[in-house]
Amino acid sequence: MKEIPGGITASKGFKAVGVHCGIKKNKPDLAIIHSDVPAVAWAMFTSNKVKAAPVQVSIKKIRNRCAQAIVVNSGIANACTGERGIKDAQKMSRLAAQELQIKEEDVLTASTGHIAETLPMLKIEEGIRQAKSLLSAKGGRQAAEAILTTDTLAKEISVETDIPGRGKNRVKIGGIAKGVGMISPKLATMLCFITTDACITEDALGEAIKSAVNKSFNQISIDGDMSTNDTVFIMANGQAGNRKIKTWHKKKKLRVKDENFDYFCQSLDFVCLSLAKMLVRDGEGATKLIEVKVEGASFLKDACRIARAVASSSLVKTAIAGASPNPGRVMAALGAAHTRIKPDKVDVHFNDLLTIKNGVGIESISQRLREVLKQDEIKITIHLNQGNHQTTFWGCDLTEKYVRINKRYV
Amino acid sequence: MKEIPGGITASKGFKAVGVHCGIKKNKPDLAIIHSDVPAVAWAMFTSNKVKAAPVQVSIKKIRNRCAQAIVVNSGIANACTGERGIKDAQKMSRLAAQELQIKEEDVLTASTGHIAETLPMLKIEEGIRQAKSLLSAKGGRQAAEAILTTDTLAKEISVETDIPGRGKNRVKIGGIAKGVGMISPKLATMLCFITTDACITEDALGEAIKSAVNKSFNQISIDGDMSTNDTVFIMANGQAGNRKIKTWHKKKKLRVKDENFDYFCQSLDFVCLSLAKMLVRDGEGATKLIEVKVEGASFLKDACRIARAVASSSLVKTAIAGASPNPGRVMAALGAAHTRIKPDKVDVHFNDLLTIKNGVGIESISQRLREVLKQDEIKITIHLNQGNHQTTFWGCDLTEKYVRINKRYV
Repeated sequence: MKEIPGGITASKGFKAVGVHCGIKKNKPDLAIIHSDVPAVAWAMFTSNKVKAAPVQVSIKKIRNRCAQAIVVNSGIANACTGERGIKDAQKMSRLAAQELQIKEEDVLTASTGHIAETLPMLKIEEGIRQAKSLLSAKGGRQAAEAILTTDTLAKEISVETDIPGRGKNRVKIGGIAKGVGMISPKLATMLCFITTDACITEDALGEAIKSAVNKSFNQISIDGDMSTNDTVFIMANGQAGNRKIKTWHKKKKLRVKDENFDYFCQSLDFVCLSLAKMLVRDGEGATKLIEVKVEGASFLKDACRIARAVASSSLVKTAIAGASPNPGRVMAALGAAHTRIKPDKVDVHFNDLLTIKNGVGIESISQRLREVLKQDEIKITIHLNQGNHQTTFWGCDLTEKYVRINKRYV
Repeated sequence: MKEIPGGITASKGFKAVGVHCGIKKNKPDLAIIHSDVPAVAWAMFTSNKVKAAPVQVSIKKIRNRCAQAIVVNSGIANACTGERGIKDAQKMSRLAAQELQIKEEDVLTASTGHIAETLPMLKIEEGIRQAKSLLSAKGGRQAAEAILTTDTLAKEISVETDIPGRGKNRVKIGGIAKGVGMISPKLATMLCFITTDACITEDALGEAIKSAVNKSFNQISIDGDMSTNDTVFIMANGQAGNRKIKTWHKKKKLRVKDENFDYFCQSLDFVCLSLAKMLVRDGEGATKLIEVKVEGASFLKDACRIARAVASSSLVKTAIAGASPNPGRVMAALGAAHTRIKPDKVDVHFNDLLTIKNGVGIESISQRLREVLKQDEIKITIHLNQGNHQTTFWGCDLTEKYVRINKRYV
């Protein structure tokens, strides 16, 4: 597997575009991603009970596991907009289907931005028309830019991987994502669109994306707030011409695991985790990436709860923002995480510096810890010394800028 | 019931004092609260698995439901300090017992401040000696000041209430509290000491304080971080000479509810809720009090989860800090609260202004909402329109100052 340029249009047979239709001032705000042929598709959505209109519409559309295009706007989330919002989301995908001359049921839709506001449908209609005429096999970057809100950077990645075996075997996967606030530790919490030219079964694609999302987007937190619009779409159009990837295949009447599936999953995991880390790095106001690794847990659930609790603690996050040597805050956060830990067995490292041993603070390390905390990436390793389970979770620091951005954002 | 001056020393037979022993610079940092006679006592502690040494020591001491004094320091929390911390906490109460010439087992102890640092026991020893000589029936205010950390104001309240019936029936209750950061929505999350001169049984006192704490301190959130040191102590020394308050009494061989218990509970509820609101108002960096009332829930648990989620949401808190008209953030927060709500039945008011009706944002109210949000107290009323359960939860806004304070605090 190696990284290649091209983002979401690196995969064969995909075109994309981003345009400015007028929802936001002077910034691109509408994107279309289009596959030359209908693709096997899978989606994951927010677990928030308050689901935006495009989420409700796309949940129904994805049932047939097939899609040929995604139309998405930024600036307005089309959430808490009632019946009108549903009609607008439906209309958005119908307009795109008409322009692209494909089936309406094969167009997925997503929105991101301000909640409780309705879409300016005339602008969107005009935007879709314009987008259609500009669709390009080099438009991945444009699309990545058009889905941003308060993000400071576009987030895209693409890889190619050679799957062993006979025949054509080079497969590409590309992805774009956005997300800076309302990034929460509960389920896929942002917009993410992934394309691949791999030929793969519905089941295998579904299993691969669920596993990848659980290890990446579900393991990050920016502010603990869960969006109404979180969506991950993946489309696999089979244009690579590889032997179809399955979860299992038959060999002499036995069910055997398909090795190619593991290769595909490895690459998809890399794409999702890369995008997830980009989201955290570009978290609203964030200046530092925090990686919390929990080792030696008796149960995986305990490790996950602790990693999430520590990475989400306002006091841990502000201490890291200010390079304030305060490892006790990690202990307070992990103790509050509803687990069966033994506090007097816990060791805590910041990068390579041991700060808590057997639950007791090490004295006279303030100055050295302060130096460690000045770095851009802080790795907190918590060893519970109770069992063999481990996990890793990513977060960012909490700064005055996060507060400033969200005091103003309307 | 009426408010009276005196705080924790308003109750008959209680003395208190606060002194500067040298843990903090130039600020009082050690307090003693003392009852002339042994008092019926009850305590509630943090549910954090990482419990500070004084919490571990006091959990054992409170088992006999009796106490005559509380000794407490601020500046260092004596948490994550291992065996040495336990010995220091024991020594602190032994020194106080020797000075006050009372039983060691009747001296409760508490600490608040920096985690993972050990107590300067020589300074504490000298401080206790000095405190003993200055104990006074007017020392309530001093004690309230000596337990503060980054608090900007001392928090105290006292009331007297006339219990119906024959004989002496005037009972007083006084309390002090501290808490500005690590104030979390899970259990009693701060230090709070309450005295009363009421004559009351152990069981009745326990039932009354548990009920009052659940309705007050367990219904507030400042930053969602749970302390290792949270403690509520209540001492009832019986000096009011009232007929003993019970939960039940016998009347013609029947178990009858003691009406006086309800009177006592009403006053205790008022004391706890007043202190809880003072904590939130003085939350680190807070400029506004947020009251979240959830009505019309099918289950009380749902109402509680939603109220806590909305009051704890970073995005709701920053919107209120910036008077940014963004009711959609309330919908996003309540949808993420793991409940069985129907989003299209939800109404949301900010003070008296309807902002969401049947889950849909009301258009063109931005300007009016902005005016509402400029007030000092913001009341968010969420009507779920599904059942008859309701609850109220209190929080504060999230400002740059919270971040600034916690970047620096070591």
